[in-house]
Amino acid sequence: MRYTIFGESHGPAIGVVLEGVPAGLELDLKAMDQDLSRRAPGKDGLSTARQEADKVHILSGLFQGKTTGTPLAMVIPNSDQHSGDYESLRWTPRPSHGDYAGFISSKGCLDYRGGGHFSGRLTAPLVAAGSVAKQLLARENIWVAAHISSIYGILDRPWEDVEELKTAAIKPFPVLDDGKGEEMRQAILEAKEDQDSVGGSIECAVAGLPAGLGAPDFGCNVEGIFSQSLFAAPAVKAVAFGAGVGFSYMRGTEANDPFTVQDGKVFTKTNHAGGVNGGITNGMPLVFEVTLRPTPSIALPQESVDLRTGEEVEIEIKGRHDPCVVHRAVPVIEAAAALAACETLGI
Amino acid sequence: MRYTIFGESHGPAIGVVLEGVPAGLELDLKAMDQDLSRRAPGKDGLSTARQEADKVHILSGLFQGKTTGTPLAMVIPNSDQHSGDYESLRWTPRPSHGDYAGFISSKGCLDYRGGGHFSGRLTAPLVAAGSVAKQLLARENIWVAAHISSIYGILDRPWEDVEELKTAAIKPFPVLDDGKGEEMRQAILEAKEDQDSVGGSIECAVAGLPAGLGAPDFGCNVEGIFSQSLFAAPAVKAVAFGAGVGFSYMRGTEANDPFTVQDGKVFTKTNHAGGVNGGITNGMPLVFEVTLRPTPSIALPQESVDLRTGEEVEIEIKGRHDPCVVHRAVPVIEAAAALAACETLGI
Amino acid sequence: MRYTIFGESHGPAIGVVLEGVPAGLELDLKAMDQDLSRRAPGKDGLSTARQEADKVHILSGLFQGKTTGTPLAMVIPNSDQHSGDYESLRWTPRPSHGDYAGFISSKGCLDYRGGGHFSGRLTAPLVAAGSVAKQLLARENIWVAAHISSIYGILDRPWEDVEELKTAAIKPFPVLDDGKGEEMRQAILEAKEDQDSVGGSIECAVAGLPAGLGAPDFGCNVEGIFSQSLFAAPAVKAVAFGAGVGFSYMRGTEANDPFTVQDGKVFTKTNHAGGVNGGITNGMPLVFEVTLRPTPSIALPQESVDLRTGEEVEIEIKGRHDPCVVHRAVPVIEAAAALAACETLGI
Amino acid sequence: MRYTIFGESHGPAIGVVLEGVPAGLELDLKAMDQDLSRRAPGKDGLSTARQEADKVHILSGLFQGKTTGTPLAMVIPNSDQHSGDYESLRWTPRPSHGDYAGFISSKGCLDYRGGGHFSGRLTAPLVAAGSVAKQLLARENIWVAAHISSIYGILDRPWEDVEELKTAAIKPFPVLDDGKGEEMRQAILEAKEDQDSVGGSIECAVAGLPAGLGAPDFGCNVEGIFSQSLFAAPAVKAVAFGAGVGFSYMRGTEANDPFTVQDGKVFTKTNHAGGVNGGITNGMPLVFEVTLRPTPSIALPQESVDLRTGEEVEIEIKGRHDPCVVHRAVPVIEAAAALAACETLGI
Repeated sequence: MRYTIFGESHGPAIGVVLEGVPAGLELDLKAMDQDLSRRAPGKDGLSTARQEADKVHILSGLFQGKTTGTPLAMVIPNSDQHSGDYESLRWTPRPSHGDYAGFISSKGCLDYRGGGHFSGRLTAPLVAAGSVAKQLLARENIWVAAHISSIYGILDRPWEDVEELKTAAIKPFPVLDDGKGEEMRQAILEAKEDQDSVGGSIECAVAGLPAGLGAPDFGCNVEGIFSQSLFAAPAVKAVAFGAGVGFSYMRGTEANDPFTVQDGKVFTKTNHAGGVNGGITNGMPLVFEVTLRPTPSIALPQESVDLRTGEEVEIEIKGRHDPCVVHRAVPVIEAAAALAACETLGI
Repeated sequence: MRYTIFGESHGPAIGVVLEGVPAGLELDLKAMDQDLSRRAPGKDGLSTARQEADKVHILSGLFQGKTTGTPLAMVIPNSDQHSGDYESLRWTPRPSHGDYAGFISSKGCLDYRGGGHFSGRLTAPLVAAGSVAKQLLARENIWVAAHISSIYGILDRPWEDVEELKTAAIKPFPVLDDGKGEEMRQAILEAKEDQDSVGGSIECAVAGLPAGLGAPDFGCNVEGIFSQSLFAAPAVKAVAFGAGVGFSYMRGTEANDPFTVQDGKVFTKTNHAGGVNGGITNGMPLVFEVTLRPTPSIALPQESVDLRTGEEVEIEIKGRHDPCVVHRAVPVIEAAAALAACETLGI
Repeated sequence: MRYTIFGESHGPAIGVVLEGVPAGLELDLKAMDQDLSRRAPGKDGLSTARQEADKVHILSGLFQGKTTGTPLAMVIPNSDQHSGDYESLRWTPRPSHGDYAGFISSKGCLDYRGGGHFSGRLTAPLVAAGSVAKQLLARENIWVAAHISSIYGILDRPWEDVEELKTAAIKPFPVLDDGKGEEMRQAILEAKEDQDSVGGSIECAVAGLPAGLGAPDFGCNVEGIFSQSLFAAPAVKAVAFGAGVGFSYMRGTEANDPFTVQDGKVFTKTNHAGGVNGGITNGMPLVFEVTLRPTPSIALPQESVDLRTGEEVEIEIKGRHDPCVVHRAVPVIEAAAALAACETLGI
Repeated sequence: MRYTIFGESHGPAIGVVLEGVPAGLELDLKAMDQDLSRRAPGKDGLSTARQEADKVHILSGLFQGKTTGTPLAMVIPNSDQHSGDYESLRWTPRPSHGDYAGFISSKGCLDYRGGGHFSGRLTAPLVAAGSVAKQLLARENIWVAAHISSIYGILDRPWEDVEELKTAAIKPFPVLDDGKGEEMRQAILEAKEDQDSVGGSIECAVAGLPAGLGAPDFGCNVEGIFSQSLFAAPAVKAVAFGAGVGFSYMRGTEANDPFTVQDGKVFTKTNHAGGVNGGITNGMPLVFEVTLRPTPSIALPQESVDLRTGEEVEIEIKGRHDPCVVHRAVPVIEAAAALAACETLGI
């Protein structure tokens, strides 16, 4: 399965084409809508005021409710665009956004309105594709679930069993510990009040993957496959498996996962490795954490450059922006993980 | 350019085939040998006692000292093998090594001797391939250099300018602050004395990449391309760009990199983004940190399972092992980065 | 550049996503429409009576008339569908059409209406993608042109110079020798009268490709790249370069192309090789011929099988069909060639 | 499974690395040797006088006789080289050989000795890789067999059943009709006497492939997959499936394959399609024919160019050459087909 996401924030539509979808999947469009609504901006002041219907139109690859095995094209029309908000930013790239890099790579031809192809809006088709992937995984008893593991340094507690993670994932504010969630929301609102933004992290688990998938080699390595998919989600700046950066503080005795046997099946007592050894799944849940940078679009004045004159200028970003994208990114990370899991399984 | 690494630790040879090497490169074999000697085990007690000549034999793709554009095959014969050391471990996988995952993926057919294809020895051909990549990059005034950023929680200081990083990278123990380096060495020796091992991290920079390479999309995203290459290096468990996991504690005002202009060229005053915005290079040095887990091969008794009987057993790993691989991994990470940089440039 | 075609004949729309389109191309939509109208069914009785507007809607990747470097999504809505015509064929595959193979590959879930994803209609997005490719090639002074080389054994004469081939390619019935063209048209009309169909062949040239592109190896071989693209065009059953199948009757003295020099440039006096030696372009025009099978959809009664009961049945294909697709396929073959030429050039 | 062939005719060794070989295959090295000896030059005057042992050394991926799933590297050392023969041709490319195209693509750096990477010798590792592929296919009851279908216009008779094709394929001169074979041999010997060479064609069948593999789309199309593999075999200039170029002379009534049912299984009464409809296997044997050009290396004087001076020169090719490669290419075409069949099956 291979996906291609297309579209610009203020163009006629965004969408995705999924190739290699196995035939015969009864596609649950309601489940897809639910995932899409998890990433939609809320009405709680934590997100952008831009409202999008995110209605998926399926153009191909589905017949009488089932996938046909031919490319599945899904399109989401754009609406509620305030393109005028962006005109002033055409030649003055917003710091840490894709504007400048995109200006160079497009030879000055990029659609600068609303972030164009760099817009967080492009995560909607990613979530739609991820929903198809999740439904394919579910047939193999594999599920994917994520929660906010931290926002602005406020940490959620670790998950203890699979069910509580699955439950947390679909909450409106997906944390295990709602008290911590409340603290995180406060941090977001304070940042908003300060015309600023905050970063955070998401922990995700893929459970049910059989042992023995992948290889140590470039291109087949499970961590490599997942990381490539995860870094394609906007704002992701770090990907860490199992104990992750914590490994750098550890000794082998702490880090190693001892083997044990239960009901004739081999397990490890701990899962510091995050389900992968030597680039191959070991049968334990695949667990990883991604770090998301604070939204670069903040309302405070910032230093930029006028690309026409080469002069330094101060800019103020208008438009409607998220003070934090972490809570909305939970289904996005699940989607990227689900697509990577399909690749790992050779689906 | 595309590379395929082959070989097992105790087979006749290991090697790599590089396809798509541009024709006409005068290959500097001395530079390749220097990189290989940087990853070779030292005589300082910090590394395995296994000694390998790591002599590269070039079978194809080089004629009269220059690359011909045809596949470049490089082979390193194996020697100094103590295969007997491993016989006892055939059916009792070492915790957190690739043994168990590899046993399943190979349907029980893997070459279990010395870690087989999972052995750290396979980083020798990776370094050889990386040396070719570095030489190609050097023609474009792009260089790659790395240093140990931490071992067992002891941090090296940040690099301030390019030259000091390049100098540190080729030290026998590649750190910027030799005092910190001495502390790290002590930590390694203590772990060794305790029959244990330690983890750490490596920071790497790729300088000279032009702005505008890459795309936000899956498969073209610069962070995705680099991470896939880096996770194929053994022991890497996390990859973080720029401020990395630190972004989760930041506000936008701290994280954003303000633009400035010097001599008519656009720069950013800080480089928290690590040289990439929206998946595209922005002209600043590409900077990332990888976390390496502690060597799973430790001499202390560990809990395993006998794969024939399904019974829990205690094992003791014989053989010669590294109490830490971080210092030897510096040229390995440079190699993975150099190959990713070539992919990013379309070389 | 990479393309993904999606859609079914009787679904809401068909289309294509082109990834990796270089930024900054001023897209000539009129030229695209002209190519599309070359493949549209005519009103001369030689083609299906189905009329389609084939209006391309560009959803992304184009801004202010120029490509942005982001994925270019083009959609063509379907209309004028007589889906009822096909209901009777759902379980009785048409001989030599994709019905049966598609039924098996889709596990019985294919959209059987109007050939579904196998429909010749899917060549419209291929032509649209090919038009983008041709425009990119034109910037490098490379052009692509084709003519009908034979229909039902009636041969067009060989082309003598580049200009006459380019002129022939855009004729309503693209042959060099209009007398032969008239004979071909008669053969098509006779087949139509007999409720039958005819096959033929198309010769195509790509001129202006520099020498030295490609490699002998799998995946880089120019003939391999072109053939993979060409066989993805419906009805193509053979691809032959230069003297093609004629080589099997030749001696080396006849087949070899002697070198010569004109104005300091190396040429070959003949071009039996069709512009490729050892899988690499030699600077001469790339020339190849494809054979297209007779349309499998004929109105005469044919032997089929009822896939529900496993019983042999006789079927009669209703609907509107082409008695010959060769003349309409000329821009399709040009499109497949143009996309392959871009791949060869690394565009 | 993916293969990379490396090496030059007069370098230290040639070889191949096969990635993605399923673990657990008991590799039959004798079968591999038999295939290699089928392509080795004979002692009958029909082939080059160059004698090579073609001894395969397996460097990795095989342990205790079974594949381990890790990359399988096979190396064949070179010997019996008369490099001096080629020195005179360094700057004067042989007509219709890869010399000139390779000179340009390698920026003048190619190993010109004995054809270098373009040498027919590189088919030895292809045959070795193909032998692995055939053994994997045999486990699925799929076999691949080919015969000479024509040399210099002398045609072998068509095969009637599977067993006679398999028997013919392994004859020293692989034809069905030995009388025709004798005529072909005469044609080769006459060409040799005239210091000339002859072309021909090979027909190949892959039987046992299940229906439903592949897709109409670029990259998944079965004819596209096979053709890309086949054109990577040296001297192949045309690839035609089923009735092939004959389709251009046919009507639909002749070309279509009527369905029938035998023992509850769907078949077609004829196999003009060559086992593929709409890019998907239909369960009938995959049948195709490749055309091979006459060996470009002939001893007669030929017109070339001195690449240093740009002057036209006459050259005479010394060295030992094949007056015909068709008979030796039979196992090569089988190998390319077997590798393509594995790709089609997702092995």
